[in-house]
Amino acid sequence: MDYKAVIEGDLGKILADKPDDLTCQAARYSLLSGGKRLRPKMMYMTYDMFKGSDDKLYDDVRYYAATLEMIHTYSLIHDDLPCMDNDDLRRGNPTCHKKFGEGIATLAGDLLLNTAMERLMEIALDKPEYLFASYRMARLAGIEGMIGGQSIDITSENKKIPPDDLYELQEKKTGALIECAILTPYYLLNGTDRKSFESDENISLLRRFAAHVGLAFQIKDDILDVTSNPEVLGKSCGKDERDNKSTFVTLLGMDKANERLDSEISKAHEILDTLKNKGYNTAEYSELVDYLKIRGN
Amino acid sequence: MDYKAVIEGDLGKILADKPDDLTCQAARYSLLSGGKRLRPKMMYMTYDMFKGSDDKLYDDVRYYAATLEMIHTYSLIHDDLPCMDNDDLRRGNPTCHKKFGEGIATLAGDLLLNTAMERLMEIALDKPEYLFASYRMARLAGIEGMIGGQSIDITSENKKIPPDDLYELQEKKTGALIECAILTPYYLLNGTDRKSFESDENISLLRRFAAHVGLAFQIKDDILDVTSNPEVLGKSCGKDERDNKSTFVTLLGMDKANERLDSEISKAHEILDTLKNKGYNTAEYSELVDYLKIRGN
Repeated sequence: MDYKAVIEGDLGKILADKPDDLTCQAARYSLLSGGKRLRPKMMYMTYDMFKGSDDKLYDDVRYYAATLEMIHTYSLIHDDLPCMDNDDLRRGNPTCHKKFGEGIATLAGDLLLNTAMERLMEIALDKPEYLFASYRMARLAGIEGMIGGQSIDITSENKKIPPDDLYELQEKKTGALIECAILTPYYLLNGTDRKSFESDENISLLRRFAAHVGLAFQIKDDILDVTSNPEVLGKSCGKDERDNKSTFVTLLGMDKANERLDSEISKAHEILDTLKNKGYNTAEYSELVDYLKIRGN
Repeated sequence: MDYKAVIEGDLGKILADKPDDLTCQAARYSLLSGGKRLRPKMMYMTYDMFKGSDDKLYDDVRYYAATLEMIHTYSLIHDDLPCMDNDDLRRGNPTCHKKFGEGIATLAGDLLLNTAMERLMEIALDKPEYLFASYRMARLAGIEGMIGGQSIDITSENKKIPPDDLYELQEKKTGALIECAILTPYYLLNGTDRKSFESDENISLLRRFAAHVGLAFQIKDDILDVTSNPEVLGKSCGKDERDNKSTFVTLLGMDKANERLDSEISKAHEILDTLKNKGYNTAEYSELVDYLKIRGN
């Protein structure tokens, strides 16, 4: 299925009814300026894996996928600001503040976060069984997840941090939204019975799978920052060294970083094998995991 | 009742379990550095007015009051940034970015917004009848409310806007959270029957009351920016003129602004009279409305 066309179409409708508002324009500029759409794709993949013969939640999964991409995009807009990572290029285009100015970019980030949260509540007004999935997305975007990782990141600039701290940082900063992408459809499909989630073996497997996928994704990101170029990558390169950042490459060296990448990918495959043995179709995820190793941007 | 001690105590517990995280420290710094706590107070007042003989939702009203103050505080942190209003002083103290730097301040604002939204969903997991109140708070904080007003504000800098646009700007930027403060407890008390909200006369009265209170508050703010001084006001003065902003004073002149303030206060009292005739105790709100005229900061 052409996941990408679906998510681009859905994102195109976000805030589209406010054409005259400059903050909305800036939010839409960032939301629609490309990107791999990896998180939405993973949502569709989990859904495909667990939906069984029934396809009735497809539109709701799309709704959550677009919402998660809004949260991801707001974090990029704020992250790119001069007071944070100070990046001029994102997804091959000028960053939001380069195009609209810092004030509007800050507000556009706030707008995307706030609107995402409105959506998480709005859908649960009619479908209260979804509230747990919504709540988990909000949690994983917050201090226990993405913002928590970002906070460690910003306070560890210009110093070497121990590898364990880097794992924690990345598990939160990148890993949290990836966990959210991988788990949300499972919550939606089983929302009426959320009391059982704590002892659900599939959730435990998906969570471990997400951790390996998240680390593999981030290690490759750190490698590409050194080995790629802005034309291919769509964002600035060499900025980890410029900002004296601790990365898997600077802490482990390139060889060990590649070894660790292979190890994460292999562990992710092991979990997929377990799920396959339980009868689930893991082909799409298996392909995605291999892509994490070879991706060029 | 000593509303202020209650809200300060509740806010003191927010993010208090993360003492080592600098972003949390910055968020708590802004959350706990004073302020009139007008919005939480109004929440308690609406609750007192409508609770009847039963006091069982008191803790939940406190929970929502603290959550609203978190949203208000995040908006101040971002609003004070150099790329927005560029203010050094807030509530008599250095602004968040002056104390912690712009990167941490941006993230601390994100953290307060995100955590507030987590709370709005978390409480509804156990009490689904509250979800509508939560959703309304999120909406009023977003493009239909506060962020929408902020967006008009930032795009109308350095130009005179028509008075009608200024009303729209302020109804959203300041009025939306005030409406939220005044209406939330009513939603909580009647949440199991939200279908009836559209035809509920009390909601219609409270919403009109909120509009007058919001305008009275903002007109007085504009007047104080000209007539007060930073020691009393706790924030910079004369900045509307410095930033060439359209305010009720610059658009209407001081005399007309004062007349309009009186008119808003008188209309607010009229609505309180209607509510009083319906049997509700409006004494606290009546006092608050008079305070809006005479307040010195």
